[in-house]
Amino acid sequence: MSSFDLRLPTLRRAYRARTLTPRALVDELRAKAAELNPSFNLLIHLLTEDEVAPYLERLETQPIDSLPLYGVPFAIKDNIDLAGIQTTAACPAFAYTPSRSASVVARLIELGAIPLGKTNLDQFATGLNGTRSPYGKCRNSVHPDYPAGGSSAGSSLAVALGVASFALGTDTAGSGRVPAALNNLVGLKPTKGLVSTSGVVPACRTLDCVTFFTATAEEASELLALTAQPDASDAYSRPNPQWNTARAFGRPSKFRFGVPAQLEFAGCADSPALFAKARALLEAAGGEAVGIDFAPFVEAAQLLYQGPWVAERYHVAGDLMTKTPTAVLPVIREVLAKAPAATAVELFRAQYRLQELKVLCDASISSLDFVLTPTYPRAVTLEELERDPIAPNSLLGYYTNFMNLLDYAAVATPTGFMKNGLPWGVTVFGRAFTDQYLLGIADLLQRTSGVQRVGGAGIEPAVPAERQTASHDRMRIAVCGAHMRGLPLNRELLARRATLLHETCTSQRYRLSLLDAFADGVRRPGLSRVTDDCGSAIAVEVWEMPSAEFGSFIATVPSPLVLGKVELVDGTWVTGFLCEPYGFQSATDISGFGGWRAWLENGAARAEIGA
Amino acid sequence: MSSFDLRLPTLRRAYRARTLTPRALVDELRAKAAELNPSFNLLIHLLTEDEVAPYLERLETQPIDSLPLYGVPFAIKDNIDLAGIQTTAACPAFAYTPSRSASVVARLIELGAIPLGKTNLDQFATGLNGTRSPYGKCRNSVHPDYPAGGSSAGSSLAVALGVASFALGTDTAGSGRVPAALNNLVGLKPTKGLVSTSGVVPACRTLDCVTFFTATAEEASELLALTAQPDASDAYSRPNPQWNTARAFGRPSKFRFGVPAQLEFAGCADSPALFAKARALLEAAGGEAVGIDFAPFVEAAQLLYQGPWVAERYHVAGDLMTKTPTAVLPVIREVLAKAPAATAVELFRAQYRLQELKVLCDASISSLDFVLTPTYPRAVTLEELERDPIAPNSLLGYYTNFMNLLDYAAVATPTGFMKNGLPWGVTVFGRAFTDQYLLGIADLLQRTSGVQRVGGAGIEPAVPAERQTASHDRMRIAVCGAHMRGLPLNRELLARRATLLHETCTSQRYRLSLLDAFADGVRRPGLSRVTDDCGSAIAVEVWEMPSAEFGSFIATVPSPLVLGKVELVDGTWVTGFLCEPYGFQSATDISGFGGWRAWLENGAARAEIGA
Repeated sequence: MSSFDLRLPTLRRAYRARTLTPRALVDELRAKAAELNPSFNLLIHLLTEDEVAPYLERLETQPIDSLPLYGVPFAIKDNIDLAGIQTTAACPAFAYTPSRSASVVARLIELGAIPLGKTNLDQFATGLNGTRSPYGKCRNSVHPDYPAGGSSAGSSLAVALGVASFALGTDTAGSGRVPAALNNLVGLKPTKGLVSTSGVVPACRTLDCVTFFTATAEEASELLALTAQPDASDAYSRPNPQWNTARAFGRPSKFRFGVPAQLEFAGCADSPALFAKARALLEAAGGEAVGIDFAPFVEAAQLLYQGPWVAERYHVAGDLMTKTPTAVLPVIREVLAKAPAATAVELFRAQYRLQELKVLCDASISSLDFVLTPTYPRAVTLEELERDPIAPNSLLGYYTNFMNLLDYAAVATPTGFMKNGLPWGVTVFGRAFTDQYLLGIADLLQRTSGVQRVGGAGIEPAVPAERQTASHDRMRIAVCGAHMRGLPLNRELLARRATLLHETCTSQRYRLSLLDAFADGVRRPGLSRVTDDCGSAIAVEVWEMPSAEFGSFIATVPSPLVLGKVELVDGTWVTGFLCEPYGFQSATDISGFGGWRAWLENGAARAEIGA
Repeated sequence: MSSFDLRLPTLRRAYRARTLTPRALVDELRAKAAELNPSFNLLIHLLTEDEVAPYLERLETQPIDSLPLYGVPFAIKDNIDLAGIQTTAACPAFAYTPSRSASVVARLIELGAIPLGKTNLDQFATGLNGTRSPYGKCRNSVHPDYPAGGSSAGSSLAVALGVASFALGTDTAGSGRVPAALNNLVGLKPTKGLVSTSGVVPACRTLDCVTFFTATAEEASELLALTAQPDASDAYSRPNPQWNTARAFGRPSKFRFGVPAQLEFAGCADSPALFAKARALLEAAGGEAVGIDFAPFVEAAQLLYQGPWVAERYHVAGDLMTKTPTAVLPVIREVLAKAPAATAVELFRAQYRLQELKVLCDASISSLDFVLTPTYPRAVTLEELERDPIAPNSLLGYYTNFMNLLDYAAVATPTGFMKNGLPWGVTVFGRAFTDQYLLGIADLLQRTSGVQRVGGAGIEPAVPAERQTASHDRMRIAVCGAHMRGLPLNRELLARRATLLHETCTSQRYRLSLLDAFADGVRRPGLSRVTDDCGSAIAVEVWEMPSAEFGSFIATVPSPLVLGKVELVDGTWVTGFLCEPYGFQSATDISGFGGWRAWLENGAARAEIGA
């Protein structure tokens, strides 16, 4: 049963069918973990039978469907607190035993999930390879010559090797994404502040995120929806805007994505073709690729380790390093060596530069739905890391280091394998709070690339269900009158940074009427849906604007005009202008013109002549 | 003509009536400035006839009404660039001559305003009193024993003494507000990033704002609307959300405002009664005062000078201080002495603490429309400052230092006078981007307190025109069905942090109908406006939610329901639920019940019995 499918929907079905109990599953997984640990060093601590007992006992008194994560086994990176179990951050001299679980751990347990163990990591989460630990090096789940990737090395292995359904990692510089790519997993690095970091040993407190390793994007979406909650005990917690909370993610039919104009593969022979394949999958799904200048992203990335942000890491480990230098691994001491001398003036200068770079990066992605990059330029071997523990590690972060500095959300997604069998993947990233949208894209990639599986065990992709359109930080609006391009109220759209997506028309179920005069003197039509066969297709323009500006937009709409849902000729529904019943009382039906612009060009003049 | 009224509407009328020309006005004002400067030291440089000539010549070719600021004379704090004129920051050794004007100056000139001179300031904008300058001390415009207040001392004097219609200041710690209070002016410190700081000598680049000194809140509103523009050359520039762009501010009829539970007047005999009067004016206008804990605001304020933020100031003046210590005033050297030794670790720790305090402060004002404080606890005399140039200066910033650290907008507003004649005022502050709303409140205070005037010359308040409701970061929505409190869709409001404001009903012009079944099984009514006498008043609840969440809310509204404008029984209009015409085709009129809740309690059961 070592290839048991631990995905959330699979477990749920097995529990409901009574073919599985949490206790039986946990017994088996504990045995499996104990067997694997000598080879992979994935766990710093495997919960004992006594330690796991309270979680199992609680479930035995609860109906299966009362808990969304009933009996789901998970692993916890050992820089995240689990009450009563030592937190080491892979530094025995730093260890402490917390009395409370981290907020996110407590939430998962409350929802029915079962903690199995604390996973190995690069000490103080400082590393991207998984070998910087006194608890042993984490080798890759697939290829023995490669590392697991880090710093959340053991967490990625727990999922990849089938010891847990999902695992919690952390990600400051790429620690939740690089190991996902190297082990054929989805690694969700949520927007900063969405998932509480209360009870997490900080790496860089202004940048740290809790992450999820899962077999599928669908599971990551569900876990994020369940755990993205404001937390008063985390000063960096941020409320999740409503357009990013839908659990049902979807497959947008048309989208624009960025691709770095300068791609770095560091000489890897396989990566270029693997990246081209992922890009082609997105284009085949309706995506338009747009080249973007990657230089400001790379410069931002370099600030993380070459600039004063190491002072944040020193804030955590500095006292110990000063008192007992040998308690900290030599490589970590080397990375943090310059931190105590960094001045506040230097830090402000670096923060100014970061802000300038953020302006450039934000501008280059402002009209895009997301950006596609490789997750790592090329894999590095255990042997390389042995020879030089720093430069090959840095190479792994080329596409990941900038993400939290720039406040973006990112999902590492498996899309293929190198010729030697090592998993390879891409990252889709975008503006803060677009997480659920990005997960929809990751799902698309995972399914269409055909690599969705858990660890070594291939799993057939489920038939994708019909889904809602993914939530997004942009909203579409159909306009049919004075808001159209070049007409008097178009300024209301432009002022809100709206862009014209396309010109189309409604389904055959609408009529358009010239309304009575408005107080501002602007002539406007009213659109209304009919249920008989007397409707027409009416010309509309579909615009897109930031969701956050929509409230102020509706404030400008005068009675009897309203905003509701309009059916387009392709059968989709979009928010758009309509009109209250009373507005039509003395209105003139102008449906025959087929649209407002045609009426302005033809009918308006005729109406004036007639008057 | 020394009491000439320079307010924007007054000048506009005079220019239109051809009773005044820009050239005549500028000649007079230049003469007046030259006459006043020996006593007040308000100007570091008064533009010569040659220097001002190009601005006047340009106006002579333009129609008056083509430029919104046609012929409006303004003064510029001498840490803001005017092309071709030396910028000194009140430090002759630091001076340079810029080839381009600061973005905001260029914008004002483009709109027709005429720069008259560069004004005196506390050196490097480091001070709140106006005496820290090698160009002479700035005494108060009204009382010779007091300072003008700083650091934008000369700018406040230019407006207060009738030399300019408005003046640009800067504000990091209170430099745009303290001098306003001491000289009976409105001092608008806009939200950080709204007005470009490109071309401004930084004090603390992460905190600096360009500010406006005006005689009235109405003028500040107009100037902000004209200049709040994104600027690619300022990395800290932020787009202005649409709900903060309305030039027409208003007088909200009901609002809630915070008042510090702990008020500090530093022993001032007059301030307590003056503050109580301002509070009473707001209560008389429909405001409800709510006590808030002021401790976290005060702690945040202390971070500014006692913490590592002085390193930002050192970033600007440090090189000069090191090379030529005597080029910098002793008091500035003393303030910045600790800056070079501050470490990056200390700065990160201070930034963590600030973030924690911001969470507390944001929470305490989250349900309020704004907060009311004094602008200064008590005035300090020139003699006190002579004895101790630091402690009395710090006292002036008690209510201002925290503002930019916490990312709030603020307006200093005159509301009265001390017994000795010295102007006194309050500050209204609130969340970022509520500037125009705050200006509406400032206008209310200024008009009702009866102190609106320019400098020593009393000016009758104009009769307030009918105004739109002030724009705000909160929006109201009238719900009449399943979104009401306790009903199935109310969760959509609660998830968006909406709060119930009040229960009321529509005007007598509506009907309510039970609509056909929806796909989700939730029963919903449809509201429609009628134009005959057959309408009823229908019960509605008015909720309020963050404007930024409104877009995602409308996305949840299914056809045939729509959002439009609903007339309430008190004659006001509010965004609310209505229904498309086709939805009523087989609907049952339930207007007789007077509302959805009454129908659920009575009609629904009867309908089921009937079925």
